[in-house]
Amino acid sequence: MRERDNIQRMSGYTSGEQPDSDSVIKLNTNENPYPPSLELEKLLAGFSISSLRVYPSPLANELRDYLASLHNLERQNFLITNGGDELLRLLFTTFLDSGEPFGMAEPSYSLYPVLAEINDSPIVRISLEDDWSLPRNFSKSLNNQGVGLACIVSPHAPSGGLVNVDILSRVASEFNGVILIDEAYIDFVDPALRHDTTRLVNAFDNLVILRSLSKGYSLAGLRVGYAIASPGLIDPMLTKTRDSYNMNAISQKLALAALMDQDYAQTTWDRVRTSRRSMRQELTTRGFGVPPSQANFLLAEIPDTSPLSALELLKALREQNILVRHFNVPELEDMLRISIGTDAQNACLLNTLDNLGLIPLK
Amino acid sequence: MRERDNIQRMSGYTSGEQPDSDSVIKLNTNENPYPPSLELEKLLAGFSISSLRVYPSPLANELRDYLASLHNLERQNFLITNGGDELLRLLFTTFLDSGEPFGMAEPSYSLYPVLAEINDSPIVRISLEDDWSLPRNFSKSLNNQGVGLACIVSPHAPSGGLVNVDILSRVASEFNGVILIDEAYIDFVDPALRHDTTRLVNAFDNLVILRSLSKGYSLAGLRVGYAIASPGLIDPMLTKTRDSYNMNAISQKLALAALMDQDYAQTTWDRVRTSRRSMRQELTTRGFGVPPSQANFLLAEIPDTSPLSALELLKALREQNILVRHFNVPELEDMLRISIGTDAQNACLLNTLDNLGLIPLK
Repeated sequence: MRERDNIQRMSGYTSGEQPDSDSVIKLNTNENPYPPSLELEKLLAGFSISSLRVYPSPLANELRDYLASLHNLERQNFLITNGGDELLRLLFTTFLDSGEPFGMAEPSYSLYPVLAEINDSPIVRISLEDDWSLPRNFSKSLNNQGVGLACIVSPHAPSGGLVNVDILSRVASEFNGVILIDEAYIDFVDPALRHDTTRLVNAFDNLVILRSLSKGYSLAGLRVGYAIASPGLIDPMLTKTRDSYNMNAISQKLALAALMDQDYAQTTWDRVRTSRRSMRQELTTRGFGVPPSQANFLLAEIPDTSPLSALELLKALREQNILVRHFNVPELEDMLRISIGTDAQNACLLNTLDNLGLIPLK
Repeated sequence: MRERDNIQRMSGYTSGEQPDSDSVIKLNTNENPYPPSLELEKLLAGFSISSLRVYPSPLANELRDYLASLHNLERQNFLITNGGDELLRLLFTTFLDSGEPFGMAEPSYSLYPVLAEINDSPIVRISLEDDWSLPRNFSKSLNNQGVGLACIVSPHAPSGGLVNVDILSRVASEFNGVILIDEAYIDFVDPALRHDTTRLVNAFDNLVILRSLSKGYSLAGLRVGYAIASPGLIDPMLTKTRDSYNMNAISQKLALAALMDQDYAQTTWDRVRTSRRSMRQELTTRGFGVPPSQANFLLAEIPDTSPLSALELLKALREQNILVRHFNVPELEDMLRISIGTDAQNACLLNTLDNLGLIPLK
């Protein structure tokens, strides 16, 4: 074995299944059920292949400038990354010494512990409350254990719960290290809540917001994410630890076009919100315990009356070509995470549940 | 400052200038002067935008399988990376402990020391001989200083010199750590030399070959590189330290099409080789010292008789919209690295040199 001891000891990240077949109803990895903006099709058809001969724009400044106008911030507040995953990795590389403790709420995104193990960092896991909210002593516990970097997912995965801005402010203010707010699902939050964390980057020099085009803009295949933070946090990642040409030329162009077509993206978010409401209702009627979600998925606790356990239900759905997600951790043992699909996909899921004996209660 | 001490201390990588203007003759970052295969244009025009909604193939196995057939090896010998740079980074993350020494020949690719600094690793620099060849005691010196990972560029940048297979075998056999052979420019090697290092990955479990589509396939803008190595080296990078979806769906498809059009790529390599021969001749006639190059660039030492120093010449060329590269290290102070351009670009460079007083000697 040639690899470092900590790499040898660890297991890699297990991503959700990505089947090649189009006949599968894929409700397992939280993709947007609607296609990306048609503007991208025109743009791709007119793309000059010969321009690929040269290196892409190293800093993707055109994208940064557009994001600055979109969020009413400055270019210096933005870093474009090869998916949100690259940003997560860069936070470890840039801000956490090898072996320095990493902190996270439990349960949350299962990639975090993998990145901590790569960094040879002990993991401080703070259990969420029963309603999936952050415990009051979150920051204090992290500080007591010398945590240098911590992540909060909001809307939370896999429950869909939103962490409000006051709580995030308090964490940023109390926590001694760098805090990431992972907003991969933020676009699906109900606009009536007027939830906006972007102002926090001017108030706190230790807070980084992660955004992704994978879900909100239906572009998981394109690998584009970005960071919003104070220039003091952006700069070392932008100029030192990032791969010099981290974003290919086509993704840069398509991402810009997708961001510019806000109207279209927002119609997909609206449709997902509508389906989320009705699916929560339908699942609740069938006896599932489903906490309110502001993301494009629901966490469904299997009813006590169910003839099948969570894992059995996952397998039964799989046999009907419907993929959902199960997480092998104690808190989530009896639950399935179900992405919001198209109307037809959602109806098919409900039908299949009925056929499996999970029928609406009187 | 929130960043780690070693990140704060270091400077980032300085890439060659990437001007937006098409009116510039760009001989500074070794791009292939010819466009990529026209097959890519057709493929892009027919690409289904809606397929971008879902995650890309995480391991890019279609590409790996094609490479296996191309190189007559197995899928397990290949890892696809977001440009060659990602592979370099992964080698540090996977095989070199934080603080463990890194080894390199000096001069070579200026990204290596940056990656070593990110890893907080001391850098062991072994000076090349006057003819840019590796010194006989290369491996022994690395071993004596506890080096865990080392890089050799072949064809060497910035000289263009090829390191022969026997020497690479000897290094792999003698060196105690993991050795990377950076073959970013390998496609431009004269086929008459029958140079092939790929067999070495079956013989040595500590040897990794880096390949890139940036130069050979005119796809610097697409960010696709790959590793060839024994499965024991590929596996921890593939399953543990790599970002789970490191390669976007479009780059995967276009890269495959480019690799499949070997005939076209080879015509570009042939043309570059022909131009390389004549440009070396022309520069030599003008008094430049130009070592033989197997890459798509020439390292040109300014003649003693030149009215301009290397830096002055670089600036004078720049004023005529011709970009070449200068490296601010003592061994390369009097030299410029000049990429091979199209016939028209090369002629324009020679003309401009003539006008600057660097005329052919009698």
